[in-house]
Amino acid sequence: MMDKQQIASLVADELTKAGFIEVEASARHVHLCQEDLEKLFGKGARLTPKRALSQTGEFLCEERVTIVTDRRTMKNVAVLGPLRPHSQVELSLTDGISLGIKLPVRDSGDVAGTPGILLRTDAGETMLSCGCIAARRHMHVTPEDARSFGLSDKQLVSIEVLGGRKTTYGDVLVRVKDSFRLRIHLDMDEANAAGMDGFTLAKLIK
Amino acid sequence: MMDKQQIASLVADELTKAGFIEVEASARHVHLCQEDLEKLFGKGARLTPKRALSQTGEFLCEERVTIVTDRRTMKNVAVLGPLRPHSQVELSLTDGISLGIKLPVRDSGDVAGTPGILLRTDAGETMLSCGCIAARRHMHVTPEDARSFGLSDKQLVSIEVLGGRKTTYGDVLVRVKDSFRLRIHLDMDEANAAGMDGFTLAKLIK
Repeated sequence: MMDKQQIASLVADELTKAGFIEVEASARHVHLCQEDLEKLFGKGARLTPKRALSQTGEFLCEERVTIVTDRRTMKNVAVLGPLRPHSQVELSLTDGISLGIKLPVRDSGDVAGTPGILLRTDAGETMLSCGCIAARRHMHVTPEDARSFGLSDKQLVSIEVLGGRKTTYGDVLVRVKDSFRLRIHLDMDEANAAGMDGFTLAKLIK
Repeated sequence: MMDKQQIASLVADELTKAGFIEVEASARHVHLCQEDLEKLFGKGARLTPKRALSQTGEFLCEERVTIVTDRRTMKNVAVLGPLRPHSQVELSLTDGISLGIKLPVRDSGDVAGTPGILLRTDAGETMLSCGCIAARRHMHVTPEDARSFGLSDKQLVSIEVLGGRKTTYGDVLVRVKDSFRLRIHLDMDEANAAGMDGFTLAKLIK
């Protein structure tokens, strides 16, 4: 018998053929470099995978960190693996207002000149000199999906999110890579503005 | 000499003629009935206006309240006047997740069967049996504006928000009333998802 997840996956595949794409909401999270990992969790620390994420090789970690600003602290923030060359903190603009940081909307990895922030755990802390962003809306696409949808890498498209609140997002960055799985990623402001609640599809509007 | 606000107002009037409408973001706030006002601020308490809001007769109050759930407390929440027949707490869906409340998206005043919540001040507290909503996107329109835009009361329209993140919101409820001033009202999730930052216009798409 198929479990719920298998059924959802099958349904998603069929819907993809019909031109719909699954949308995932990214809650606030942190990517760490080895140096910051060790400052936060001790010399020689390694990430502990808790659960695989939809993108191949990406995982949620058992590790959690606290974000600290003059204005407030945000506990229990998720750490995503694997390690990256540069640490990066992905927040919603709502989080930014709450923390008192003016966040730029950037593509993942494009952190030059972005605000820094203090991360803390019971075992240590690290002051990032930059890395705080609101991630730009984007879509992970395999070369095969790209062909079937007629998309190319770095293209900007619009999507109609089929959530509880009728919303069309433009300027969604298409990223094509062999290892990707077809998904649209929005932040929590975007997910909530569109009334997303669990499994959600979007219709591609080029 | 005109001050900044007068210039902004003049510009807004000209832009309205060209088919653009000013968008305002509503931060979380509370409307109180007389009974809840007295429970929170003492017998015979009255609201103290601090600043007029864009809609005629509406004002931000000096009074502030704390929202309390099992999950967390949210201090310093704005109270808007004048008093209403029923208390109502308007939050974003992000606030709802943070507080652990599943908020329905409702029109203002339509609070039957919505979640209740505890409000507290240094002087007292009141447990609302209902009244927590995420306010549905809406547009305040005068009869004159309605004629010039070809709109009618209770119509649903789409708007393209001219913010930093390209976004079109559908199902925006049109409300027509003599006393209104032309404005679109979004919640903070919607404002941030659209990259609103200060004075923002939207283009009406019927």
